Amino acid sequence: MTAPCGFEADGRRCVLRSPLAMPHASTFLWNRRMLLQLGCRGYATAQFMQPEPAKYAHAPVLEARTFMQPEQPTYAHHPGRFCYVKDEDAGLLFSAPHAPVNRRPDAFAFSVGVADVEWTVRCDGIEVAMSVALPPDDVAELWTIRVRNRSGRARRLSLYPYFPVGYMSWMNQAGRYRADLGGIVCTSVTPYQKVEDWFRQRDFLDRTVLLHDRAPAAWEANQAAFEGEGGLTTPDAIVSRARLACGDALYETPTAVLQYPLELLPGAEESFRFVFAPARDDAGIKALRARHLGAGGFERAASGQQARLSAARGCIEVETPDPWFDAFVNHWLPRQVFYHGDSNRLTTDPQTRNYLQDHMGMAYLDPQAARAALLRALSQQAPEGAMPDGILLVEGAQLKYINQVPHTDHCVWLPVFLEAYLDETGDLAVLDVAVADRDGTTRSVAERIDLAMRWLLVQRDGRGLSYIAQGDWCDPMNMVGWKGRGVSGWLSLASAHALRLWAGICRRCGRDPEAGEFAAGAQAFNAAVNEWLWDGDWYARGITDDGVVFGARHDAEGRIYLNPQSWALLSGAADDERRARMVAAVEAELASPWGVAMLGPPYTGMREDVGRLTQKFPGSAENGAIYNHAAAFWMHALYRVGDADRAWRTLRAMLAGPDADDCIRRGQLPVFVPNYYRGAWRLHPRTAGRSSQLFNTGTAAWMYRCTVESLFGLRGDGDGLRIAPQLPSHWSRARALRRFRGAEFDVRIGRESGIAATRVHVDGTPLPDGRLAGIEAGRRYRVEVRLPEVGEVG
Amino acid sequence: MTAPCGFEADGRRCVLRSPLAMPHASTFLWNRRMLLQLGCRGYATAQFMQPEPAKYAHAPVLEARTFMQPEQPTYAHHPGRFCYVKDEDAGLLFSAPHAPVNRRPDAFAFSVGVADVEWTVRCDGIEVAMSVALPPDDVAELWTIRVRNRSGRARRLSLYPYFPVGYMSWMNQAGRYRADLGGIVCTSVTPYQKVEDWFRQRDFLDRTVLLHDRAPAAWEANQAAFEGEGGLTTPDAIVSRARLACGDALYETPTAVLQYPLELLPGAEESFRFVFAPARDDAGIKALRARHLGAGGFERAASGQQARLSAARGCIEVETPDPWFDAFVNHWLPRQVFYHGDSNRLTTDPQTRNYLQDHMGMAYLDPQAARAALLRALSQQAPEGAMPDGILLVEGAQLKYINQVPHTDHCVWLPVFLEAYLDETGDLAVLDVAVADRDGTTRSVAERIDLAMRWLLVQRDGRGLSYIAQGDWCDPMNMVGWKGRGVSGWLSLASAHALRLWAGICRRCGRDPEAGEFAAGAQAFNAAVNEWLWDGDWYARGITDDGVVFGARHDAEGRIYLNPQSWALLSGAADDERRARMVAAVEAELASPWGVAMLGPPYTGMREDVGRLTQKFPGSAENGAIYNHAAAFWMHALYRVGDADRAWRTLRAMLAGPDADDCIRRGQLPVFVPNYYRGAWRLHPRTAGRSSQLFNTGTAAWMYRCTVESLFGLRGDGDGLRIAPQLPSHWSRARALRRFRGAEFDVRIGRESGIAATRVHVDGTPLPDGRLAGIEAGRRYRVEVRLPEVGEVG
Repeated sequence: MTAPCGFEADGRRCVLRSPLAMPHASTFLWNRRMLLQLGCRGYATAQFMQPEPAKYAHAPVLEARTFMQPEQPTYAHHPGRFCYVKDEDAGLLFSAPHAPVNRRPDAFAFSVGVADVEWTVRCDGIEVAMSVALPPDDVAELWTIRVRNRSGRARRLSLYPYFPVGYMSWMNQAGRYRADLGGIVCTSVTPYQKVEDWFRQRDFLDRTVLLHDRAPAAWEANQAAFEGEGGLTTPDAIVSRARLACGDALYETPTAVLQYPLELLPGAEESFRFVFAPARDDAGIKALRARHLGAGGFERAASGQQARLSAARGCIEVETPDPWFDAFVNHWLPRQVFYHGDSNRLTTDPQTRNYLQDHMGMAYLDPQAARAALLRALSQQAPEGAMPDGILLVEGAQLKYINQVPHTDHCVWLPVFLEAYLDETGDLAVLDVAVADRDGTTRSVAERIDLAMRWLLVQRDGRGLSYIAQGDWCDPMNMVGWKGRGVSGWLSLASAHALRLWAGICRRCGRDPEAGEFAAGAQAFNAAVNEWLWDGDWYARGITDDGVVFGARHDAEGRIYLNPQSWALLSGAADDERRARMVAAVEAELASPWGVAMLGPPYTGMREDVGRLTQKFPGSAENGAIYNHAAAFWMHALYRVGDADRAWRTLRAMLAGPDADDCIRRGQLPVFVPNYYRGAWRLHPRTAGRSSQLFNTGTAAWMYRCTVESLFGLRGDGDGLRIAPQLPSHWSRARALRRFRGAEFDVRIGRESGIAATRVHVDGTPLPDGRLAGIEAGRRYRVEVRLPEVGEVG
Repeated sequence: MTAPCGFEADGRRCVLRSPLAMPHASTFLWNRRMLLQLGCRGYATAQFMQPEPAKYAHAPVLEARTFMQPEQPTYAHHPGRFCYVKDEDAGLLFSAPHAPVNRRPDAFAFSVGVADVEWTVRCDGIEVAMSVALPPDDVAELWTIRVRNRSGRARRLSLYPYFPVGYMSWMNQAGRYRADLGGIVCTSVTPYQKVEDWFRQRDFLDRTVLLHDRAPAAWEANQAAFEGEGGLTTPDAIVSRARLACGDALYETPTAVLQYPLELLPGAEESFRFVFAPARDDAGIKALRARHLGAGGFERAASGQQARLSAARGCIEVETPDPWFDAFVNHWLPRQVFYHGDSNRLTTDPQTRNYLQDHMGMAYLDPQAARAALLRALSQQAPEGAMPDGILLVEGAQLKYINQVPHTDHCVWLPVFLEAYLDETGDLAVLDVAVADRDGTTRSVAERIDLAMRWLLVQRDGRGLSYIAQGDWCDPMNMVGWKGRGVSGWLSLASAHALRLWAGICRRCGRDPEAGEFAAGAQAFNAAVNEWLWDGDWYARGITDDGVVFGARHDAEGRIYLNPQSWALLSGAADDERRARMVAAVEAELASPWGVAMLGPPYTGMREDVGRLTQKFPGSAENGAIYNHAAAFWMHALYRVGDADRAWRTLRAMLAGPDADDCIRRGQLPVFVPNYYRGAWRLHPRTAGRSSQLFNTGTAAWMYRCTVESLFGLRGDGDGLRIAPQLPSHWSRARALRRFRGAEFDVRIGRESGIAATRVHVDGTPLPDGRLAGIEAGRRYRVEVRLPEVGEVG
């Protein structure tokens, strides 16, 4: 169920040994211009930007365009990349990787690298290896297919690479083999009805090509002719004919199938290369061929992409008692963090809160990119200080979908981003950078954040609580305050936290009046929340337009929400007694074998005064799921209040769900942290813990930040480094290599009996306050950290 | 290839005997609220209105909503209605009607009635009959499945009705068996993001149910669990298990599969009834069950629907030398005409030209409906006389898709509609009806049509030709005049025709000043077209924004368009010499074995000064296809100029393409006239003649009108009936029963040697001018028509 758990770690690769054990296991590759999601059975989803997300391999129907969905179901004709193999003598048929024939393989490996994916599939002595990588700058998939005869006897085979292209366009679609271009070329025209759309679309890459390095004996470009009565499991064109019919598709669903007859002696191997890509015209296709199928093309692409991904190396390498965690933190987590900042989730208008949090993660990998993102976001600030619902990334982009719905939390993320960015970089100079907005008004970063904070202070009701409008961080809470009166408990606490962070930064910069103003604002928010929303054991989620407090003990569903508790820890709203009650309530009401749910009990029907959230399926995404982004806030807050064990349990559940122990024992590994695991475990035990398989999530950035700053306690602090690890109590030691401000820190952490507090030595010298100042770039520091034995903390 | 040809006529049913011969053969059922398109293999597309078109059985992906597409490709998981049969002893598996198992049947019949569809499928001695009908007022499919043992030995079987429900919603979807409701209930929530959408959607029928009359032994509501590794061809749940697992779908793709174990003695039969429908809640489901699965429910629905469809009886019944044509005109054609007027093509904003032409057809079936449509259309006229691009049919509807693109021809269709409506009804009183528009201004119908005609006269350039804006009748000609200068030759001729028709009506009503004004306007249009667009052998299609004449001899592609020629015959623009040249040019340039193409040669690439048309696939829809709606104008024009043989050939090609003779010989029949057959026969001979399978087309109304008015020559004329048949020369006789203004006319037509002109007798009395006045409602007239022998016309 908890699908990302289950890969075997094998150096920097992760390997899955069966297509049956985890049929939905998947991974993703991306480059500057595209994203390729690959399931272990060969199903695939590819997107690129022109400038909106576009596809070159389609479903067999007119598909609706939408944001990336979790738990996408596959079906026989789902887009994918496959290779049929027919034994010409025995008639045996199978397909690599697994679908569409679904023949049970004798051996199988779905091997996921940082920049490539490879399958090895063996049926009846024939081994097929399929691998794919992306070049750094092209929208193109580079495929290698190798066939090896491991059967010990000579074999006559036909190999049929099959790259379905699907329903390209109702206006115009066709496919045919082009010997002059060396492959199958499928053409289409993106449908349009308005003249202005033509000018926007005229240069679209409306063709899809499968180019080969070796000419095939036959081919088929017509999907229906390929399948015949046999369908995809036993296509007529393969099963009933010796050779493909070399057909074309004329305003019919095109496809790309090639046939290579092979005679393989025992041990012999043949290898083929293909480029699968969108293109605009013949010239573009020729250029693709020259670039990638010419000598050394694939190798050049691989080294280029490798160089690009070196930014995903991260700022830390760790060694802990959990080798699976080491592999995840050292390779997979920074890769996922980098993906977010690098690709902006393949949208032209990322939600402002996502954009800022994704680039909060980038602060640890590529601080310049993070800085640029902050400046870009601020350049789109409204004159009165509000941040827009989304940040436009390309000329002519528009706010779409959810970004057309007013949310009131976007300003909060500026100080949250800045805290991490400044800690990591010490770049206080960024606060003085002048940023012009679209009206041409220029203000410094600091002035713009002042404005944003004042906007938060203005958007309060008479009680001093933040209006929610049609949503805050929780998008689908869209009817709490649409009439303009409802308020958000979480947002009030988040505003308090943001104001407090900003007040602290102002104070450090000598902006004392502002520091005082914002610290007072934070206090006011905290006081208001304590007055109106403390519910006895936890903080309520908000108050609706009609004055109904919700997320409170009188509710049968949605009684407690995680976020207000997490942010009450961060904002300082909760005193010690309340803190203890809240933590106990979260344990009692939200903790599950699969992690901490975002709210509970899940809603089972519409509450018109809450909105869309309550219409979501219980256990899906926000409605009662283990929503990892919310769990990450909880983890962060627990670390900030020093609850290291509970924080670690939260972190570990995010990675592997209930089978974490089992996975660790078997050395299995997730390759990304998904945005949620299904919750509603009492209501729907069968599906609880199932992964969304969706790798777009702010969780990655928070998990990285917490690992660096809190778990390993290597957090920037002004011009220095504060060293205060918070290992879980069952770890007796850990080691980290931390890159920070141009220096390297070789950090060894152990426990020592008889000490009451953590002791830090740097290059043998004690560091009484745990803070190292005056860091010299280029220098390598040796850091020893001794933690008190568990139970001996003073 | 020409799919509608191929059914065997069997009384009022049409039967197809193989799922392999015409895999795309399809038909449709509809009632007041829904449409069900059924392919012979069991694939199905259902739509209903709430108020926009909605679905209750979905594709396996998020499907894009679009207008009804031609030539929709199917694939294994396409929505459909199926029944698996497993022999419990022999392990044999097949599915009725054919998909998804696709086992070659021993016997097969796809039998299409006016109000029901039935399949009979026999495999290995087991006969399955599946039939479906719709109730008159409910969105519900009423299915009967009968299984009969024809094998002569006792059999143990399991029957698995399988109704895939598909991907209902990304927000919320589930499915489970509800014993209390008697069936599988799949739930979902239509996704929305904006608060205002919730109020529009809260009452949507978001559930899909399969209700049974007999409780099953087991069931499955989870699509993935049903298929397992075997997929749809050999589902694990059927092949690997004795009983379905009684599973549910929890935020997973739901499905509806039931299992009935049967022990059948030789000759024994079992019968099952099911209701497949959308519903809102439990109460709605109970009501569906009570209404349709209670005693006599199916029978009540059938008689109700039959009563409703009696309006599709039409105004004529014919008997000709072509029995297939008789069946088509007597049953299938009026059914298709009625479908258009009754359902308005399942849209809330039909294009104005479609709406008026569809209701032109209704003039012959249900004149009151036609009259109401005219008044509704005029109530949406703009103050300056322009007709809108679409007619809004429900409160809150909006102009969508193509109706947001400005077209300039909509006014033309008012007199075209009126000519037919007034001829058929004599209802001149309609011209005095006061029609209020949305501004509250009230004008009579006649005044509104005056306004519309004057708008056509105003929308001319300095040459006196009609501006085209972003399109006229040919929607995708969207870039000829988008800059505001380009003109349409066809529209100028159509305006001339419309003005002439309206002038004639005005004259009949004693509105002589208006008659003079509009007759002069018509002449001016004709003169301008003759001056600027006569190209030597035909009329050009138009002049672009940049002054380029197109659809003319200097063009390599799109050299000649059919519509300007047809309408030049109607408008009177062409003198005898030009008429002869035009007809010859159409024969030479546009005629093909499959009928008359809309333009030729087809475009093979974008012409930016013509637009979207040139991006359409050659042979698809407008670009060089046998576009039947355009062919119908040609037919109508040919009849109007007395070219009966050429008109008949055009008509016959519209029905059966190149295989017409063959179909006639075999007694085969189309069940609807499709909107096009693929053209581009020189460029793409493989696909030329293929039917679009799309039954939405103005062709039906025009074909009915021409059959009644011209072929049989029984056309209203003021308060009388004008009798002037135009039989094709190879017909020596024909007979018709014509219902007209409450009277019945039993018309026998024959040829006689030695006469120079047609002679008509009514009840034995000669009718010298062929016009019968003073018709008495309730009376039955005996009409004898003697035509000159071919070659003897004077």
